[in-house]
Order: sequence, then C-alpha cells, then structure tokens
Amino acid sequence: MKTRYKTTVGEINEDVLFYTAGRDIELDQALIEYDCVGSAAHVRMLSDMRIDPPLFTKEETSQVLHELLDIMRHSRTGRFEITLQDQDVHMAVERILTSKLGDLGRKIHTARSRNDQVAVDLRLYAKQQIIDTMDETASLANVLVDFSRKYSDVPMPGRTHMQPAMPSSVGLWAGAQAESLLDDLVGLINAYELNDQCPLGSAAGYGVPMPVDRELVSDLLGFSRPIHNVLHAAASRGKMESVVLSAMSQVMLSLSRTAQDLMLFTMPELHYFELPSELCTGSSIMPQKKNPDVLELVRAKASRVLAHHVAVYDIVKGSPSGYNRDLQEAKEPFMEGISITRASVMVMSQMIKGLKVNTDALLKGFTPDVFATDRAIELVGRGMPFRDAYQHVKDHLDELEQIDPVESISKKSYYGMPGGMDFNAISDRLKNASDFAGEKRKSFHAAIGSLLDVPYPELE
Amino acid sequence: MKTRYKTTVGEINEDVLFYTAGRDIELDQALIEYDCVGSAAHVRMLSDMRIDPPLFTKEETSQVLHELLDIMRHSRTGRFEITLQDQDVHMAVERILTSKLGDLGRKIHTARSRNDQVAVDLRLYAKQQIIDTMDETASLANVLVDFSRKYSDVPMPGRTHMQPAMPSSVGLWAGAQAESLLDDLVGLINAYELNDQCPLGSAAGYGVPMPVDRELVSDLLGFSRPIHNVLHAAASRGKMESVVLSAMSQVMLSLSRTAQDLMLFTMPELHYFELPSELCTGSSIMPQKKNPDVLELVRAKASRVLAHHVAVYDIVKGSPSGYNRDLQEAKEPFMEGISITRASVMVMSQMIKGLKVNTDALLKGFTPDVFATDRAIELVGRGMPFRDAYQHVKDHLDELEQIDPVESISKKSYYGMPGGMDFNAISDRLKNASDFAGEKRKSFHAAIGSLLDVPYPELE
Amino acid sequence: MKTRYKTTVGEINEDVLFYTAGRDIELDQALIEYDCVGSAAHVRMLSDMRIDPPLFTKEETSQVLHELLDIMRHSRTGRFEITLQDQDVHMAVERILTSKLGDLGRKIHTARSRNDQVAVDLRLYAKQQIIDTMDETASLANVLVDFSRKYSDVPMPGRTHMQPAMPSSVGLWAGAQAESLLDDLVGLINAYELNDQCPLGSAAGYGVPMPVDRELVSDLLGFSRPIHNVLHAAASRGKMESVVLSAMSQVMLSLSRTAQDLMLFTMPELHYFELPSELCTGSSIMPQKKNPDVLELVRAKASRVLAHHVAVYDIVKGSPSGYNRDLQEAKEPFMEGISITRASVMVMSQMIKGLKVNTDALLKGFTPDVFATDRAIELVGRGMPFRDAYQHVKDHLDELEQIDPVESISKKSYYGMPGGMDFNAISDRLKNASDFAGEKRKSFHAAIGSLLDVPYPELE
Amino acid sequence: MKTRYKTTVGEINEDVLFYTAGRDIELDQALIEYDCVGSAAHVRMLSDMRIDPPLFTKEETSQVLHELLDIMRHSRTGRFEITLQDQDVHMAVERILTSKLGDLGRKIHTARSRNDQVAVDLRLYAKQQIIDTMDETASLANVLVDFSRKYSDVPMPGRTHMQPAMPSSVGLWAGAQAESLLDDLVGLINAYELNDQCPLGSAAGYGVPMPVDRELVSDLLGFSRPIHNVLHAAASRGKMESVVLSAMSQVMLSLSRTAQDLMLFTMPELHYFELPSELCTGSSIMPQKKNPDVLELVRAKASRVLAHHVAVYDIVKGSPSGYNRDLQEAKEPFMEGISITRASVMVMSQMIKGLKVNTDALLKGFTPDVFATDRAIELVGRGMPFRDAYQHVKDHLDELEQIDPVESISKKSYYGMPGGMDFNAISDRLKNASDFAGEKRKSFHAAIGSLLDVPYPELE
Repeated sequence: MKTRYKTTVGEINEDVLFYTAGRDIELDQALIEYDCVGSAAHVRMLSDMRIDPPLFTKEETSQVLHELLDIMRHSRTGRFEITLQDQDVHMAVERILTSKLGDLGRKIHTARSRNDQVAVDLRLYAKQQIIDTMDETASLANVLVDFSRKYSDVPMPGRTHMQPAMPSSVGLWAGAQAESLLDDLVGLINAYELNDQCPLGSAAGYGVPMPVDRELVSDLLGFSRPIHNVLHAAASRGKMESVVLSAMSQVMLSLSRTAQDLMLFTMPELHYFELPSELCTGSSIMPQKKNPDVLELVRAKASRVLAHHVAVYDIVKGSPSGYNRDLQEAKEPFMEGISITRASVMVMSQMIKGLKVNTDALLKGFTPDVFATDRAIELVGRGMPFRDAYQHVKDHLDELEQIDPVESISKKSYYGMPGGMDFNAISDRLKNASDFAGEKRKSFHAAIGSLLDVPYPELE
Repeated sequence: MKTRYKTTVGEINEDVLFYTAGRDIELDQALIEYDCVGSAAHVRMLSDMRIDPPLFTKEETSQVLHELLDIMRHSRTGRFEITLQDQDVHMAVERILTSKLGDLGRKIHTARSRNDQVAVDLRLYAKQQIIDTMDETASLANVLVDFSRKYSDVPMPGRTHMQPAMPSSVGLWAGAQAESLLDDLVGLINAYELNDQCPLGSAAGYGVPMPVDRELVSDLLGFSRPIHNVLHAAASRGKMESVVLSAMSQVMLSLSRTAQDLMLFTMPELHYFELPSELCTGSSIMPQKKNPDVLELVRAKASRVLAHHVAVYDIVKGSPSGYNRDLQEAKEPFMEGISITRASVMVMSQMIKGLKVNTDALLKGFTPDVFATDRAIELVGRGMPFRDAYQHVKDHLDELEQIDPVESISKKSYYGMPGGMDFNAISDRLKNASDFAGEKRKSFHAAIGSLLDVPYPELE
Repeated sequence: MKTRYKTTVGEINEDVLFYTAGRDIELDQALIEYDCVGSAAHVRMLSDMRIDPPLFTKEETSQVLHELLDIMRHSRTGRFEITLQDQDVHMAVERILTSKLGDLGRKIHTARSRNDQVAVDLRLYAKQQIIDTMDETASLANVLVDFSRKYSDVPMPGRTHMQPAMPSSVGLWAGAQAESLLDDLVGLINAYELNDQCPLGSAAGYGVPMPVDRELVSDLLGFSRPIHNVLHAAASRGKMESVVLSAMSQVMLSLSRTAQDLMLFTMPELHYFELPSELCTGSSIMPQKKNPDVLELVRAKASRVLAHHVAVYDIVKGSPSGYNRDLQEAKEPFMEGISITRASVMVMSQMIKGLKVNTDALLKGFTPDVFATDRAIELVGRGMPFRDAYQHVKDHLDELEQIDPVESISKKSYYGMPGGMDFNAISDRLKNASDFAGEKRKSFHAAIGSLLDVPYPELE
Repeated sequence: MKTRYKTTVGEINEDVLFYTAGRDIELDQALIEYDCVGSAAHVRMLSDMRIDPPLFTKEETSQVLHELLDIMRHSRTGRFEITLQDQDVHMAVERILTSKLGDLGRKIHTARSRNDQVAVDLRLYAKQQIIDTMDETASLANVLVDFSRKYSDVPMPGRTHMQPAMPSSVGLWAGAQAESLLDDLVGLINAYELNDQCPLGSAAGYGVPMPVDRELVSDLLGFSRPIHNVLHAAASRGKMESVVLSAMSQVMLSLSRTAQDLMLFTMPELHYFELPSELCTGSSIMPQKKNPDVLELVRAKASRVLAHHVAVYDIVKGSPSGYNRDLQEAKEPFMEGISITRASVMVMSQMIKGLKVNTDALLKGFTPDVFATDRAIELVGRGMPFRDAYQHVKDHLDELEQIDPVESISKKSYYGMPGGMDFNAISDRLKNASDFAGEKRKSFHAAIGSLLDVPYPELE
C-alpha cells in the first residue's frame, strides 16, 4: 500500500507525486525569486482592488512583501526548501507565507491559479535569461570581430566541400562567424519581445469575477503589456517556450559551425590554428593526444537544444485549449535548452580568445589550384566569356601558377570580401544589440526594485 | 555500364544525376521566375561594372533581359523545361540564354556561382511566400475576430484537462485563437526581415577579384541591404530556411490547437459547434459518418512542418563553413513546409467561416460544478480567505447551484476576460501586420518591375 | 584567471571541467556497479594473459577484485563519491584502487581506454534496464489482458475520428492496448540482442599490441559474444543507444494512446470509466476538479522520449569513425529516456488496476447511428450489394433502430473481434516475453556472481 | 463558389479534396499492385464465406480476379489512372471494377473499410521494400567486406577526434562499416517480422457481424499470421511505419558515418583514398573542383530519414484509438524514408566499388606520435605499470621513433584487431541475412502467384 500525501489541493499517492512533481522540485529552485516577485505584484494589485472590505490593507500588504523578500534572501543562500509535498515552488511559498502570516497567506491565492504563477514565473525567468544570452552572444561576436580585425590580412585557403577552393582570409572566416551570431541576436530580440507580455489575471484561463487590474500587475513587473485574451494568456505557454528555444537553437547552430571549422582547421594535417591547451583534454590511453573535446561537445549540444525544441513543440502540438498538465514537461527542456546555450556561448568565447593562428601552415595550404577561379576571371578581364575561360583553365589545370596569397586577397577588396571587410558596421550593429539588452535589463531591474522597494538585484 | 551525362560542369553517371538532382528538377519549377530576376539584376550590375572592355554593352544587357523575360513568360504557361542534364534551374536558364545569345550566355556566370544563384532564388521565393503567409494568416485571424465578436455573449463551458472547468464564452475561445496567430505574425515579420538581405556577390563564399557592386544588385532586387560578409552570405543558407520554417511551424502549432478544440467541440456528446458539411468527409463503410478529416490533417500536418524544420536544422548542424551539398536537401523540406502551412491556413479559414454555433448544447454543458470557483470567489468577497473558501466549496460540492451562464460571464468584464474583450485593439494589431505585408509586397513588386521594365507581377 | 585542475590525463581549466564533465558525475552514479564489474572482468583477463612477467598474479587479482567489490558495496549505501576532478566514474574507481593498492591500481588501465569502459558500462546498464523494462511492460500488458477478459462482454461504442462509430466492447479496447505492448516487447527483445555484445578490447578503437582475450571478458560479463571489429566496437556507441531509445519510444507511443483514450473516456460527457482518485490531482483554484494529470504527463513524456531519441541520432549522424566526445552527450538522453519509459509503464499499471468501468454510461453511449454499418451488412446478408446497402442506410439514417449492444457485439464473434477474443493466445505470447526476460536476468546475474564470487545482485 | 465533387462517400468541396487527397494520388501509384492483391484475397475469402446466398460464386470470383489482374498489368505500363475524385487507389480500383462488373464491383467492399485496405496495402508494400532493402544492404556490406579483405594489410592512421591516434588498417576501417550494416540488418529483420502480420478483417477497427475468415486472407497474402485484436489491427498503423522507418534510419546512420569518413579521407591534405570521378561533381565557378557531393547528400539524407521518422512518431503520439485521418500524413514520410534509404545504399555501393586506395599517402600519415600508445604498452611489457608508462611517454613525446606501420598492425593480431580480422565470420553472418531475405521473397511471391494463379512478379 502506497503512502498517500496530503497536499493543499487534495490527497495523492506517493508514486504519483514522484511522477508528477519529480524534477520540478529541483528545477523550481531557479524560479523561487520570480515566484516571489510575481506574488508581490499580485498582492499589490489585490490590495488596490476596489472591493469592500479590501483584501489586504496597506499594512498587510507590506507584511506580505516583507516575507516574500525574506524568502528571496533565504533562497539566495540556499536556505529555502521545496518539499515533495509542496509539489512546486508556488505551494512552497504559500506554505511559508501561511505559516508566518496565517490568514494573510491563505488569501494570497485569490483570483489566480498555479497556471498563472508558473506562466509569469517562466516569463520573468525567460526575460532575464534572454537578456543574459543576448549580452553573452554579443560579447562572443565582439571577440570574433576583434579576431577578424586582427587577422584580416592573414590569408587562408577558403574551402568548400571540406576541400581547398579559393583564396580567403582568417579575417573573413572569423567575421562570418560573428555575423551569423548577429542574425541570431535578431532572433533573440524577437523572442524577447514575444515573451515580454504579462500573463497574470488569467486564472484557470477564463478569468475571475473580480476587478483584477491586469495592466497594473504587468506594469509592476516591468512587462511591456498584459496579454489581452485570458485564454490565450494560458494557451501561450508552450508556444512561448518553443519560440525562445528556437532562437536559442539558432545560436547553437552558429556555434556548431564554428566548432566544426575549428576541428578541421586544427587537424595536424592542416594546423591552421592551435587551440588553447587549457581548453583541451587528453586521452586515458594515448599519451600524445590533445583533443578538442570542448568543440565536439558544442557540436553535440546543438543537437540537444534542437531536441529540447522538438520535445516542447511536440508536447504542445494538438493540445486542446485550457491548461493540460503536458505543459509541465516543457519546463525541463526549456530551462536546459537555455542553460546549454549560455554555457556553450561562454566556452566558445574562451576558445576564440585563446586561439593561435599559424600563418606558416595557412600559407602552406595554398596549392596552385586554389587560384584556378582567379585565373579564369583574369581571362574574363581580357575579354573571354566566363564559360570559355572556365573550360580553358579546367583543361590546363597543371599549368596553374602559384600566386602570392596576400596579393590575391588584397584584390578582393569589394564590399564584404576578404579584402573589403567593414568592421565598424558590424561593431555598430553589435552595439545596438548590446544596448537593447542593457536597456531592457535596466528597466526590468528598476521595476522589480521599485515593486520590492529595495535595490534589485542586490536586495539590500 | 551506366550512361554518363555530359553537363556544363563535367561528365557524370546517370545514377548520380538522379541521386543528386532528382527532385530538384520538379522543385525548381517554383524558382524559375526568381532565377531569371536574379540573373537580370546580376547582368545589370555586370554591365555597370567599370572594367574595360565592359562585360555587357547596354544593348547586350537589354538583349539578355529580353530573353530572361521571355523565359519567365514561357514558364508561366508551362513551356519552360528543366532537364535532368541541366541538373537545376540555373543551368537550364543558362542553356537557353547560350542557345539564343551565344557568347552573351556564356558570359552571364561571370563573378557568381550556382550557390549565389540558389541562395538569391530561395530568398526571393521566401520573400514572396512570407508576405503571402502573413496576408493569409492575418486574414484567418480576422475571420476569428469576427466570429469572436459575433458570439461574444454566447456562454461556453471553459475546459481544462479536457473537462469542464469554469464559465467562458465562444467569443473568448475564438479570440484566443486569433491572438495566437497574432503572436505568430510577429514571428513571421522577424523571419521576413532576416530573409530580406541579398546574398549575391558571394560566389563560392570568398568573393571574386572583380569590382562587384553588391549594394546595387541588392537594391535592384528590392532587398533591404546586401549581407555584408561574403562567407556568411553563403553560410546563412540553411539557417535562413530554418528560421523561416520555425516561424511557419508556430502558425501550425496555433492551427493544431484550434483544430483539436473543434474536434472536441463537435463530438456528438458535446455538439457545441457544427462543422460545414462541405468540409467533412464520409466513411467507406459507415453510412452515418461525417468526419472532421480536415481538422485531423491540420493536426498531423503540424507534425510534418516540425519534421521539416528538424530536417533542415539537422542538415546544417555541425556543417563546416563553405558550401556543402548537404544544403540541397534543405530545399524540399523548406518549400514543402511553407506550402503545407499556407494550405492549412486557407482551409482553416473556410472552416471557421462555415462553423455553426449550437447555443443550446453550449448551455446544456453548464453543470453546477462549473460554477465552483465563482462560488469560492463569492465567499472571498464576503471576507473569507481564499484557501478557506476553496476548502468550503470543495466540502460542499453537492450544494452548488446552477447559475445563469450569461450572467456569470458578464461578471467577468475585466480586461481580456469573457465579458471584457477589446476587439478593436486586436483588429488594430492585425491591421498593422497586414499593412506590413502589403507595403513589402508593393515595394518588392515595384523593384522587380523596374528592373525588368514591365509591370510586375503581370509581366505585360 | 580560472583555476586549473590536474587530472590523470592532464591539467585543465575549471570551466572546461564543468562544461565537459558537468552532469556526468551525477549520471555516472548509476554506472558505478557496472564499471566495477567491467574492471573485474578486465583484470581477470589481464591476469590470464600469457605475458612474462604476468600483469597480475593470482593474489593481486584477488586483491583488486576485493577492492572493486568494496566499492560496489559502498556505492550501494551512497558512500562512493565521484569528484569533478575525477571527471567520471572510471577515473574515480581508478583513483580509489590506486590509493588502496598503489601500483596495482596504476596497472589496471593496461590495454583499455575510457571509451572501452564507458562502452561496456552502458551496455551492462542497458542489459539490466531492458530486462526490467520487458518485465514491467509484460506485467502491464497482463494487467490489460485481465481487464480485457473481465470486461469482455461490456459493450462500448467504438469510436473513429473521436466520434461514435460501431459497436465494440471494453474488452476489445483493453486487449488492443495489450497487443500494442506485445509488439513493443518484440522491439525490446531486438534491442536486447543488439546490445548483448561485448565491446571490450577495442581500446581507442584500434586494438592494442597485446594478447587481449576478448572472448574471455565477454563470457565473464555474461555477454553473448564480443563485437568482432574493434573499430565497430567503438563506433557502435550512439547507434546502440539510438536503437534502445527507439524501442523505448515505441512503448511510450502505445502508452500515449492508452492515456489519450482514457482522457476521452473519462470526460464527464462520456464518463465511460472512472480513474482511481489517488492517481488524480486537484486544481489550486477550482475546488471541484479531479484532473487526469498523470495521463497527460504520460502523453507528454512520449514526446520527451522521442526527443531524446532525436538528440542521440542527431549527435551520431555524420560523426566520423573513431571516438568523438559528442558521444558523451548521448548519455543523458539515453538514461533519461529509459527512466521515463519505466516510470510511465509503472504508473499506467496502477492506473489500469484502479480503473472503474461505468456500464450504464457505456450503454447510454449507444445511439442508433452506431448500428448503421451493422444494418448495411444485414442488408448485404439479404443479397444487396454492399455499396447499395451503404447508400440505402445513408438515405434512411433516421429510421435506424436501437439494437441491444450486448447482442450486437456477440455477433462479432470471429477471430479477434469484440466477441471473439483469444485471451489465452495473447497470454501465452506475453509469457514468452516474460520468460525471455527472466532467463536473461538469471544468466546475467549468474555470470556476474561467478565473476565476483559472491551472489549477485545481493553481493553478500 | 467552390466546385463540389461527388465521391463514392459523399459530396465534398474541391479545396478539401486537394487538401485531403493531394499527394495520395501520386503516392498511391506504388500501391496499385498491392491494392489489387489485397482485394483478390478479400474476394477469395468472401466467396468461401458460408452465407446463403454466397456473396460471390466461383465464376464471379474468377471474373473479379481477372479484372484485378488486368488492372495490375495496366498499371505496370502506366495505363491505370487515379483521379482526384477517386481520392485514393482503393476507390479507383473499385470504380473500375464497378464499371466493368456492375454489381460484382459494388459488392467487393463488403466486410471491409478503406482503413483495412490502406493498412494491408502498406504492409504488403513494406514487405517487399524491406526484403529489397535487406538484399541491397547485405550486398553493400559484402562489397565492404571484399574491400576490407583486399586492403587488410594496408596501414592507415587510426583517428579519434578527427586526429591521428593509433596505427590501424584500411581493412579494419572497411570492416567496421560492414559490421555496422550487419547490426542494421538485424533491425530490418525485426521490422520485417513486426510488419509480417495481416491487418485485414478489422473494418473500421471493430470487426463486422459476418463470418470473416481472417486466417485465410492472411495465408492467401503470404503473411505469417493475422493481427489478433481488430482494434489493434487498425491502431498498429503509424506504429508499424515508425518501426520500419526506425530500422531504415539506422542504415542511414551507418552510411552517414561512412560518407563522413570518406570526405575526410579524400581531403587533399590526407588523400588516403580517391573517389571514382563518375561519382563526383564539379563546381560552376571553380574549374579545379571535384566535389564529393554524393557523400554530402548521403549525410544530409540521414537527417531527412530521421525527420520522416519524427513526423510519423509525432503524428501517432497521443492519437486516440480508432482511425483518425492524421495517419494519412504518415504515408509520404514512410514511403520517402524507404526510397531515400534504398537509393543511398545503392549509391554507396557504387562508391565503395570505385574507391581507390592511395597507399603512399596512408603511409605518409604515420607520424611518430601515432605510435605513442604502442610505446607505452611496450614499457608495460617490461613491467612498468600502465599509468607510469603513459606518463613516461607523455614526458618524452619528442623521443618517439618512427616504426614500420605494417609491422605495427601485424602485432595487433588478436580477435577483431587490425591484424586479426575474421572475414569469414562476417561473411557468414551476412549470408544468413541475405538468405533470410531470399526465403521471404520467395515465399511471398509464391503466395501471390498462387492467389492470382499466374507467376509472380512476372504476371504472365
């Protein structure tokens, strides 16, 4: 006979508790702060509600806010516990409030549901995470731009199909990696804006017969606006996560390419670059090995983030309107997808910073056939139609002469070509993305600080 | 012994041709027009290039443009054929030009590669497709808003976990579907802007030693700007498709929910709604059946679009810089993912337009327990803490009284609740999305028309 | 400046340690026992190796085995720690052995690599997990067969497209769920057999110049045979996990259907079945709710397992021969995919055991149109061609008469139909699957027991 | 106003026809033969049915069989058309039969549904396809074994992490590819056996009140047995496809690795191997290029097959019992997943057959550090503990001496190592797989031949 647990919402079986709440207890650690903040805004709004008698007096409100602040501080030092019986952070916070404040704690759930809470917690969490990811991604892109600028004149055999193809430069390669991240930053901004809407006031998805001021809570929490339709506020869960993961997965896609390139470029047979030793690992059996494990993990983790996106999408697909518990399973892939992305961005940042360029090996890579296209175009310059020039060179591949690679790339001096990179333009666009993140961070923290009446995120 | 085919770029085996070019010949039909347009801009740019002798004289340029226009007109009446030997649309167009214009045709490939061409073709194609998808999605959302407005006062048992939960309205339900699409439109705009950059001038990804005017071709084709880094211009293929499919898949996610809801709401046991007969199908064995096949297909097709996204992402993941043929496999899922989405939007539009609301059945669905939360909140209004009120109602579920549903939802009159929908706000936001699509369509068509010197898309 | 850690295989940066080893330390807890067992077999083989001087004397071998057994016992009581500096279970075990036995510990890694170890650990782990999953799946299928047998005569409206379609029975429904699992058991057996091959002796994938007796270690560990080619032994990692996850995901697919059916059948509007209360959860805001959260989680977890499969597949895809660290990322989805499946099977077992059948509601579900096909076939029996009979019934749907459902299903008494279920045949096939699992468990445990010279799994 | 079409099962809208039947008309071409065969068995069974009057007299049966055979022959010469109005092959065949045979045609659908038909068609199709895939895969594996045998003594630097690691051989590499396919063949056999069950007699999933002899049709069609539970017979659709695609995707996973290896090994910097020219393609801009496009497509197509698997799984997941139209969307990914796999196996077969081994380049790849592990093990042979030997070599990497690679691999002469490959064992196991395929093909064709009373597959 299985033990039954009494929870706030009924008695349930131990196995069911584990099956339904299992990893939530661990994952919800990252949500404690947002749950408290969300509750603070909710209580502030309830206390302003024009009903008689008021739900919370001014003093009661300040008592509740004080306790919530206390929980936040405790949680930062690891002294706030979510038990299996709580099931989740929401009930854990309510339990503490009730134990400290009695009836005040039992009132706090008025006009909201747990769905409201998890929805707002996840959106506040996503807000902070997306801002951080933007900052870190922009920072990695800047590292790449610096690298690109520094090595803009170092020739590199450009490859297609993994084979040497045409003259290129280290600068062009690094710049391409940076611009890929710039595109991804646009996707992150889009995800940020979609996420930046407050779901509170939805309750079970159908509203409540009380004068809930949804604009007010939205403002208090620093959101750009409330989600209008309360059923959509509930139903957007899952979809929001999917959009954010999609943006994250694009970052991983860029990183996976950079990682794959570096694996190729550091093969002993090419040795264009050398990876920083402290970012390599050895083999347990082969004494000579210095392996690019980190790069391989970046590549593999791109698959993990995609899979997390697939999980979330597939969970939501064909799901009927109104809350369904399926959504709970979206939480882990959502949070892990973000963590993986951020860790990968940071490790790649270190990687690029420590990367050494081996100019000799790069020059050695320029075999004459790399210049075949240049030669054909030279013939075009003399008036031969391109197809004829192409065929002519093809028929005389053995006669191709070695050209000075530095000279070759200097001739490709046009917009965005190896010799024509506009670093400032890219830096400016990166700065815009950084500034966006910076402003959003500032106004978000200001709103929370004002709500709690303490500096945020310091809390003291 | 397998037949060998002589192609412009060398002799290859029949099997290889089928394996490598197989479905391209079919898919590229949709790209003919864009390939011609891209070539027109390329030639216009080449003719402006300051080299001596000029690659194309003014008259030669106008001859090439004339032939390209001719191909476009032919292709619209199905008289332009891509052969297996051509391998793709690019070589088919070059073949025709060369057969008609001799040396002029052999010159057209100067300073570009097929990668350039397919990249620009797909971006032009995507431009048109995203604009159309935005239009159609906004139009479906408007149909839903109209439906929502019309039935805003018709009560409907709101469900969670597929079970009756709280009083709601038909209007709230339909409005939620519309707002979900509104979120998706923001994603489509993001995809549009990412796509709206011209890749031309990249050649094999490393530029060419010729004064290619990349800003000019970009302007001629109506793009917002060229992609700066030429390696990124090549490498962004696959990623661009992935971002577009991701935006499309969000639309499908919304539709799959609407479809699932309608399947539930039209079950004979609920019978809230009735589907238009002309959109239902029968059974080959059961004479009485009227099946919601269309809705089931919408639900399933959401999985197809996700899978197309997975294919593209997975193809690009870990792919090294510089063109790799893997990208070719991204074309089919990309184009099919878009087609599926557009067809699904259109069929759902018809579905909603023909949907009948069965008010009697909706009212019959209001069992007393649907009012349990209302009752608890009523007690809160009298001063009982919510948790006590919740427990009180739970202990006396049998005593719940039937309330008039119309009255109940009228009490939920606050922002975004069943009785407090702001239809105009949603309509306005939809109009913004439509306007965006409209303006982009107009300026895109104007650019092409000006490039070809004929009205576009009429071509006459 | 980041702290550098000295590991057995070189000095590395703290961030890299976290990035590369992070969750391994936690996941490897489940592998400690298998790592010790694998090392025991390896040492036994090394001590038998005909080289002079011998690597391990008889006494030394027994010392090592004793320490390994000690580690296993410690790990069972949670007293074995893997540190971040260890990086993984393999190095943790080697560290303890070396601290206890000095040179003996430093010898144990002769003729093998960590890849060997993780490969054999995962296969031993998979062996036990697949056996357990087979047992539990067969047990759930038996519960369903019992349920099917018990309610074989209870009529149930058979549904297609979520709508009532033709007369069926509760027995047929439950039997179908059981048979779906029976198919899945065949897949699990296939996965078992693929996994049941010993990878040891591969070292870094290319063997070693020592007389390694690969058949011996394979036998000692209870595998059916060694994997022949040592490069394939290394390369099969990832693929093996993918095959196992694929088999697991089929089980989840079956469960997701059963779960979806139960959600439908327990909707208040149908109320065919009632779920056991102790497996349901309440709402935090709606006092009346009794939600099928467990079923929804089963449905969602089917998506999680698929996503884990996608992650593993995508990680391996296009991976070159020879070990790449990407494989490490396959470990978490592999182990979690199995855990999720087993937990879901167990919770569904409880669900079916507690399921109540509401015969009245089932009978009430039989509206006259459910008998339309029966009526058409009756006309066929009188000589009317089926298409004419179909049309006739379709034209006279209003005239359909209510038939006694019990009588109706008794007429479908042919092989596998509602009235013609052969329970014994299914039970027999389930017994075969159970027996297979039982025998494999027995011989596996016997081999390990014999290797360690203690009863296994008791270890005492 | 949309045109409405009158179909056998009711009148429907043109758009709906396109949306619901669209690609079926094309895909069903591959099912015509199996649909006829399935109908033949059904009619034979109906004519044996003990009802009075009999549904089909002996002569009528033979008339129907004659017409079905006629359709099969027509379809082989492309003279059988499925119209949009037919919706699918089943209705197209019934239309022809009815136009030729009147009432006999209208009788043929007695005691079955279209679901029955598509289910049996797909299983017959899958039977043939799996047999062919097994044959072709075994054949490719044999090509690899021959290659392995031929080059068993040619040394090759074994790589891990894409870098040279330890001495290996061309033979070991090729043998590993072969054994990977051998594992995949086991998966194909499992898929074959799961598929080899007859679904007929399920009708809409609930059977019919007629004495349908399900064992008889199963035997007539050469299946090993009928699926017992009729609801499971219907519900197994989607799951069967998923299992087959899973087996196919494993083959692709093996091929993607082989392809990736060949791309690496043919990089000019390594040049271990040379690809057959007739399987390479050129560049449209770079005259010197000889690109491994085919290999890249194999790699990318592995992603396509996985995505098709994801589509099918996701479609079925959470699908309720009883037919839902979602299943239709599983048809295209199913059929395409198989086609892609077969085409890829065949193209890889040609690739390996034409592969040239460049022994000089392989030998040049042996830098001294490749022998580091050999050296450490040599020290172990002299009594030094492995960890000390490892550290010693690591500290003296510069002193490593070049060893003769041929001698080095000859020392790895133990089971499955570069110098110890047991080719016969692998060949024998491949022969078993081929024989399995051969026997299944023979008995399948014999059954169909006997059913139609003509030699099959010749039909004449």
